[in-house]
Amino acid sequence: MAAPSPGNQPSSATIATIAGEVGVSVTTVSKVLNGRSDVAPGTRARVEASLERHRYRRRGRRAAPGGEQLDLVFHQFNSAWTMEIIRGVENVAAPAKIGVLLSQLGGAHRPQREWFDAVLTRRPLGVLLVLANLTQTQRLRLQRQRIPVVVIDTDSATAASVPTVGSNNWNGGLLAARHLLDLGHRRIAIISGPEDVLCSRARVAGFRFAHDEAAVPVDPDLVRYGNFYVNAGYEHGLRLLSRPDRPTAIFAGSDMQALGVLQAARRLGIEIPRDLSVVGYDNIPVSAWTGPALTTVNQPLEDMASTATRMLLDLARGVDPPTSRIDLVTELVVRESTGPPPAS
Amino acid sequence: MAAPSPGNQPSSATIATIAGEVGVSVTTVSKVLNGRSDVAPGTRARVEASLERHRYRRRGRRAAPGGEQLDLVFHQFNSAWTMEIIRGVENVAAPAKIGVLLSQLGGAHRPQREWFDAVLTRRPLGVLLVLANLTQTQRLRLQRQRIPVVVIDTDSATAASVPTVGSNNWNGGLLAARHLLDLGHRRIAIISGPEDVLCSRARVAGFRFAHDEAAVPVDPDLVRYGNFYVNAGYEHGLRLLSRPDRPTAIFAGSDMQALGVLQAARRLGIEIPRDLSVVGYDNIPVSAWTGPALTTVNQPLEDMASTATRMLLDLARGVDPPTSRIDLVTELVVRESTGPPPAS
Repeated sequence: MAAPSPGNQPSSATIATIAGEVGVSVTTVSKVLNGRSDVAPGTRARVEASLERHRYRRRGRRAAPGGEQLDLVFHQFNSAWTMEIIRGVENVAAPAKIGVLLSQLGGAHRPQREWFDAVLTRRPLGVLLVLANLTQTQRLRLQRQRIPVVVIDTDSATAASVPTVGSNNWNGGLLAARHLLDLGHRRIAIISGPEDVLCSRARVAGFRFAHDEAAVPVDPDLVRYGNFYVNAGYEHGLRLLSRPDRPTAIFAGSDMQALGVLQAARRLGIEIPRDLSVVGYDNIPVSAWTGPALTTVNQPLEDMASTATRMLLDLARGVDPPTSRIDLVTELVVRESTGPPPAS
Repeated sequence: MAAPSPGNQPSSATIATIAGEVGVSVTTVSKVLNGRSDVAPGTRARVEASLERHRYRRRGRRAAPGGEQLDLVFHQFNSAWTMEIIRGVENVAAPAKIGVLLSQLGGAHRPQREWFDAVLTRRPLGVLLVLANLTQTQRLRLQRQRIPVVVIDTDSATAASVPTVGSNNWNGGLLAARHLLDLGHRRIAIISGPEDVLCSRARVAGFRFAHDEAAVPVDPDLVRYGNFYVNAGYEHGLRLLSRPDRPTAIFAGSDMQALGVLQAARRLGIEIPRDLSVVGYDNIPVSAWTGPALTTVNQPLEDMASTATRMLLDLARGVDPPTSRIDLVTELVVRESTGPPPAS
């Protein structure tokens, strides 16, 4: 029988062992474990180093009074998109009688100290981060408290050890571009999300790949990055459509952005799909009801959130999920906003 | 000096007094106070009657570990509308470092026992109910625990003693109908929300009032009730617009319903606003971006939610708000979906 690898095995160190080794009281070690702020930074660092050396893991959990909770953290609220995620989390949390505590980081992609300290004290079953991430220190501290973390729609900053549920953005970009190329478009613009988010760049890569397949060059002037909101679509749309060599199709980074493109086209008297084809992204409910109804890439947000929640609950119960990095498939939904390019 | 009315004064009864009077242990009284379920129903009823007789109020509150929380309870999630409310609550709760625990009642307008018991144990700072209500017993039990309740967008079932924040729905109905009548419309349909919700009937009443002012009769066939979702607008829209004596304007119960009406009109080849004027309700962000952009009644959802949250926090601190029933004003926002009726 092979000896268990000592690297993966928590040691039998107790709080007293740690206290003795560092030369502090048991109370101090306990404060560090509970995320209390009344410990001098130098002392905290030495205690944490010792906890890490001993691979100390807190045993058991206090049952929370009034039911278990999980934390759902958005980097920012974004209307319909956010609601799809909330719905997906609730689909799993509500039947399991788990409360969902909502917060948003006001546009930051990493939670601040204050939020983090509150989580350590509150001890939720787990933390779901949406388009946000933790520092390595934060991850280790949660791990030590046995508070699992799952990231929904991961950005490029997610460490390989963190379970994530996303969707195949590269494939989404590929599908949208192939659809437009198949219709005969040769000047296609893309307005992606923010350039510092991996999903935006993955979609552009898929878009380029489809062009390569079809041996159609991509005009670098037609590749844009913006935020996911309506006004980014409107402003990029106005600029792209005012060019003398304007594109015959625009692939937007979100359905909200696509709404902005539709508005820009209306303002310039450009008719869709006769003069311009538009493809959205996400397939939020409203995309079926715009005028014209949007052709879009279905990003299964509700499913992604439900999958991430199930994964988090498994981890909280000590069950390792079979796969901890999942990308759900994206699909093209063809509606009324795309058609062949105008005859030139 | 007038003696204080004994009816308004909590007595000096302690848990022991109550236990002695009912003939149970102090533990049992304490269990009832904490909303525990392991008390026989008969015993619970006798303890509650005694607590009520003595106007017993729990003194002080345990500070919650990991920060205070409030409960935000929706009767149902409804995409963009729900998101506006969440945003308004977060605007006040986040700076006050108060967590928001989200739940939805799956379409029911009253929380079920299970949810209620969890709240009693969890002891949030307060409970915000959206389009939902408590039974009288539930209200009394929360009151005894000093857990205040505020209702957002009240329906007709809200007891007079419960603080509420709504908006002036009657005025909203009036403004929309006046706008259409002023444009010259004489056959105007209204698709309101569900008939069992007060706000739906209040809007119809305002709609009728505007017609009376203008001495234009209301055709009862053109007054419809439905849910607030897109498909209700689509289905009522199809039916109304397929009539030989079809209306020249439709006032919808929500912007989502109005999107359904726009879709029905597109399907029937009816152009907006040339052949048909459409007015929405709510002014959710997407209403500015539909094609054509919606004329709508601004219901200040975000403000309503912020106001209700501030009121709840005041009540939790023991401060009685100056007014406990507030209706925020509604306003007409004129965009592109309304115009004069077609010449007949």
